[in-house]
Amino acid sequence: MQDSLFIRGVRTTNGDLADLSLAGGRIGAIAAAGSPAPAGARVLDGAGRLALPALVESHAHFDKTLWGQPWRPNSAGPTLRDYIDNERRILRGLDVPIAARAGKLIENCIARGSLHFRCHIDVDPEFGLTHVEAMLALREVYRDIITMDFVVFPQTGLLIRPGTAEIMEAALKLGVENVGGLDPAGIDNDPIRHLETIFGLAERYGRGVDIHLHDKGELGLWTVERIADFTKARGLKDRVVISHAYCLGQAQDQRLHKIAARLAENGISIMTTAPADCPAPPVAELRAAGVNVCMGSDGIRDAWSPLGTGDMLERALFLAMRFDWAKDAELAAAFDCVTQAGARALGLADYGLSVGHHANLILLPAENIGMAIAERSRDRLVIARGKVVAENGVFGSRL
Amino acid sequence: MQDSLFIRGVRTTNGDLADLSLAGGRIGAIAAAGSPAPAGARVLDGAGRLALPALVESHAHFDKTLWGQPWRPNSAGPTLRDYIDNERRILRGLDVPIAARAGKLIENCIARGSLHFRCHIDVDPEFGLTHVEAMLALREVYRDIITMDFVVFPQTGLLIRPGTAEIMEAALKLGVENVGGLDPAGIDNDPIRHLETIFGLAERYGRGVDIHLHDKGELGLWTVERIADFTKARGLKDRVVISHAYCLGQAQDQRLHKIAARLAENGISIMTTAPADCPAPPVAELRAAGVNVCMGSDGIRDAWSPLGTGDMLERALFLAMRFDWAKDAELAAAFDCVTQAGARALGLADYGLSVGHHANLILLPAENIGMAIAERSRDRLVIARGKVVAENGVFGSRL
Repeated sequence: MQDSLFIRGVRTTNGDLADLSLAGGRIGAIAAAGSPAPAGARVLDGAGRLALPALVESHAHFDKTLWGQPWRPNSAGPTLRDYIDNERRILRGLDVPIAARAGKLIENCIARGSLHFRCHIDVDPEFGLTHVEAMLALREVYRDIITMDFVVFPQTGLLIRPGTAEIMEAALKLGVENVGGLDPAGIDNDPIRHLETIFGLAERYGRGVDIHLHDKGELGLWTVERIADFTKARGLKDRVVISHAYCLGQAQDQRLHKIAARLAENGISIMTTAPADCPAPPVAELRAAGVNVCMGSDGIRDAWSPLGTGDMLERALFLAMRFDWAKDAELAAAFDCVTQAGARALGLADYGLSVGHHANLILLPAENIGMAIAERSRDRLVIARGKVVAENGVFGSRL
Repeated sequence: MQDSLFIRGVRTTNGDLADLSLAGGRIGAIAAAGSPAPAGARVLDGAGRLALPALVESHAHFDKTLWGQPWRPNSAGPTLRDYIDNERRILRGLDVPIAARAGKLIENCIARGSLHFRCHIDVDPEFGLTHVEAMLALREVYRDIITMDFVVFPQTGLLIRPGTAEIMEAALKLGVENVGGLDPAGIDNDPIRHLETIFGLAERYGRGVDIHLHDKGELGLWTVERIADFTKARGLKDRVVISHAYCLGQAQDQRLHKIAARLAENGISIMTTAPADCPAPPVAELRAAGVNVCMGSDGIRDAWSPLGTGDMLERALFLAMRFDWAKDAELAAAFDCVTQAGARALGLADYGLSVGHHANLILLPAENIGMAIAERSRDRLVIARGKVVAENGVFGSRL
């Protein structure tokens, strides 16, 4: 049995010791510890480590990272517009190609246990499709290890930057899976026409939608409702994500319940970074209402902020800290946001540690999910499609 | 020159490469890289690592940690009172001595680069001075490596638990350096008598004061003002810390400015964990008004929460995230809160990387303070009083 791996003695998230048989890139069997290894399989000692499904990064901006570059002090002015303009200046002056920066960052994320990614890619009339083309090429480099879907993202505005919609359409023709949006009201100043444009593209090309929504208060909540209207009218149930949606953290109870019901009804996922500095979507309340809440790193070491590591276990910790979660069920919910909920938002098939599913998993020293989040050991063995792809925090394997 | 160490080629926080001469537990010289090693000194290759002063943990509860114990699901009820009662039950049922739990945690904190600690120690009429005695003994074990001062802390209340003040006084007689308080209004229900009791003890025994203040809104702000009154009246300038003080994050501008001026005038430090789940003291505004703001981990893996690592670089990250700090000057301010500001709050003499000061430092791979906070490399070489005491995240040294 070529390509088959038998992992003896791992701890499952329910506390049992088990042996895992991986074959053909999938999980062939999960048996009580002490079962015989299949003939011909390579055997790996699980050493009682906790087996976790691969982590899901639901919101990254790999195309604009400065990962691996010398430290660059953040120099942006105070407004969102200043940050956008500042980034344009920095990326324009950079002679290191996207593949060199983003590739190293993707390898770092893999070493931390993420094997599924959604990546927003900037387009604008100045540099056109160059970021899209670079990321499409880079995806091929890692195609045997990770899944990555793309969102074509009008970072400098859509309607306020004539020509952007046409570039977005061209990106869809190249194979980008999702149409992005950006503050239809607060940045683009014409919310309904903005939504008509992106939902129109999604409908015409059979793609998903993922909208950056930073607008706060009533303006943000009104926009969420309009996104629900469009999702329903255009038949895009289960294919729309609203990223950030800080405004949901400002809604009063009754209003929140009404909006949450509409999000759940239309299968609209909410992506949060669990920000500590501003209102955050109330994750427990949204989950209780049936809303799928996933998590992302957003920018990692870029012109917006030099912080970020891409570690989705750390992201789960930030979520727990944001809402003072300490109970096992709460920590399990935080973990769900960086695993199963991400898989749902990204529409991944056969995700998770079940027989027949893809053999994408992490082994790390921890008793359970809570300890995995509390300690975030860097000593992670990462297995993608049945093969070891990273060990002890380093991409690549000697096994 | 016995006990002397020459570290060749470290990066200082201003970016220069330097050689460090350590002798007699102190920094003998900081010279431009390439200087000759003193005769007889052991030589260590700094390898261009960043040299940082030892981190300062300004608020820990080592006596109640469950560090190194099997995972214990958090089982407390919803109120502060429930948490206090729940902890009593758990600690009562634990047969692992404080020294075994707290000792391992202290070694973990040393390995992460903290060499100065303030530790609150619970007393109450049920278990009397047992925690105090255990921590006093444990301090002796590490006395050649770290400094640790203590606060006698009435965790279950002071006036509402008759007999507690007498136990606190007995703790001071045993050598505890500071008198603790706990929500004079919200928990103890008699704020002025509470403050009279603890400031009376501090004045009589010549000790400092460190008060846990969780009370929110106007009640909290009023209490801060009364603490300033008592600090002035009892002549305790520069010897009082208010821990948590969430209420400062709820004060309107003008009110905040008035209170900040009183804090600065009386040398009252504010200790924050930079909580993400509730109002936090506005650190930039307080610092601008001349208030000393230090940071602490609070509980680490205990009955209050299973989270926490004791890593003060991580704590600086939490502060940066709490206020969306990304500029170099902001990250330097966050670092100041876990180093110099902590040293001021704890009244440490000869702290910091200056010639003649104690040779307490960390070497880690980073270009500068911002990168140290962003990456929080676990690969830290920790030097206490001129000797290597931890390497690569592990307490102890082969050097």
